[in-house]
Amino acid sequence: MLNKIKVVLVGTSHPGNIGGVARAMKNMGLSRLCLVAPRAQFPHPEADLRSVGATAILEQAEVVPDLATALADVTLVAGASARSRHLPWPLVTPKELAARLPAELHKPEHSLALVFGREDRGLSNEELQQCHVHVHIPCNPDFSSLNLAAAVQVLSYEIYQAHLAAQEQGELTEAEQLFGTQWDAPLAEHQALENLFQHLEETLVEINFLDPHNPRQLMNRFRRLFLRGRLDTQEVNLMRGLLSQTQKTLRLAKAAESQTRD
Amino acid sequence: MLNKIKVVLVGTSHPGNIGGVARAMKNMGLSRLCLVAPRAQFPHPEADLRSVGATAILEQAEVVPDLATALADVTLVAGASARSRHLPWPLVTPKELAARLPAELHKPEHSLALVFGREDRGLSNEELQQCHVHVHIPCNPDFSSLNLAAAVQVLSYEIYQAHLAAQEQGELTEAEQLFGTQWDAPLAEHQALENLFQHLEETLVEINFLDPHNPRQLMNRFRRLFLRGRLDTQEVNLMRGLLSQTQKTLRLAKAAESQTRD
Repeated sequence: MLNKIKVVLVGTSHPGNIGGVARAMKNMGLSRLCLVAPRAQFPHPEADLRSVGATAILEQAEVVPDLATALADVTLVAGASARSRHLPWPLVTPKELAARLPAELHKPEHSLALVFGREDRGLSNEELQQCHVHVHIPCNPDFSSLNLAAAVQVLSYEIYQAHLAAQEQGELTEAEQLFGTQWDAPLAEHQALENLFQHLEETLVEINFLDPHNPRQLMNRFRRLFLRGRLDTQEVNLMRGLLSQTQKTLRLAKAAESQTRD
Repeated sequence: MLNKIKVVLVGTSHPGNIGGVARAMKNMGLSRLCLVAPRAQFPHPEADLRSVGATAILEQAEVVPDLATALADVTLVAGASARSRHLPWPLVTPKELAARLPAELHKPEHSLALVFGREDRGLSNEELQQCHVHVHIPCNPDFSSLNLAAAVQVLSYEIYQAHLAAQEQGELTEAEQLFGTQWDAPLAEHQALENLFQHLEETLVEINFLDPHNPRQLMNRFRRLFLRGRLDTQEVNLMRGLLSQTQKTLRLAKAAESQTRD
């Protein structure tokens, strides 16, 4: 399961931290690193230095311009979050997330992105709302900002322990194969869900349910709902069909109305 | 329980790592730092920089010349160990150690030292043999050397999780109060045990059980045995009494023998 996990760093400032992350990953058997719009120059000698021999991870790291590109093909997105949000989101501890992964990543086409934000201010709300779940490392409430490499170390440590436990335990029993692995259809990938949300938003505006000048938390509430539900590809198609039909019906009705008025 | 835990760094080379350790500790509610013969200059601006606001821990850090001084008054010593040793020692995972601590540190006079070695080569065998248990962070066998601050982060993370779990659970039931808390007499402190080992070694030489020119692993086997047994103060006194009596009897016998020969 370890090779199906991608560590995604968003807007990292310090190249040393990227190296520290690579080392922490390699310590725990992870290898796929993706940098989203790093503010640090990359590659950078300080990153190599701090990686202490995990340079292969740095050499193979993807660098992409935005989070959507990084997430396009993954089926589960977990974002590191220090703060409690305006709109509460499904929140798990590193242990809870890790415990779920052997079942979650059992199917070959499933994959996970662990997303970490900027050193100074983490992930934006918009970025957090692209995640299925948020992961919070329980820590001292008076001093809760972990170093980036330290946060990656804790998460990947828990994942490696779950991997070891799953290896010892052997094959998963059917009952332990959590939702998502019992489906007929494959889970939807991130990009398909984002396309759905965009389609949903358009449609909500068209039906005057969403005021684009005062959107409030409406779309985020839908995002949370559908992300929590872990839609499969058929369900996404179903939803897209429903939205298309809504738009089509509405547009026909408007065209008819405007013809009537003429 | 968190204020009864001391993080002990032996022979640290890089001041930045000391700062990283302070930050990791504060993230997880730990505050007592002890530096044994740091090779880095201390205090050092880079330590302050990397601590990112955990400077109070650095300001209050003890600096001592040797490990024995650092450990003198603690009742449980856990040493971080990456390698499997010539002479196997009780070995726990961070999770196992942490799970034991709420009971272990329940009594006011009990305390724990978490000992971490040098960046390049960890703790020496001699230092590891001063520990009751060794803690190994399960990780990628092909890349098992964690950054010092990362190792402290993992250990203190697990300890903080156990602390939170114990708080939720409330008072320990009697059955959960592990050995060491059910004793009549208080657990022996580290220095008392070291004195015992020294006395034992002297005595073993005197009775020709231990050849000082070829000691092999003999003392280490005794150390492991008594450290694993978690002796209380009365038991240490009992052992000391036994050794004193052995020495006294032997010396009287030798004196008598030498008188006879005269």
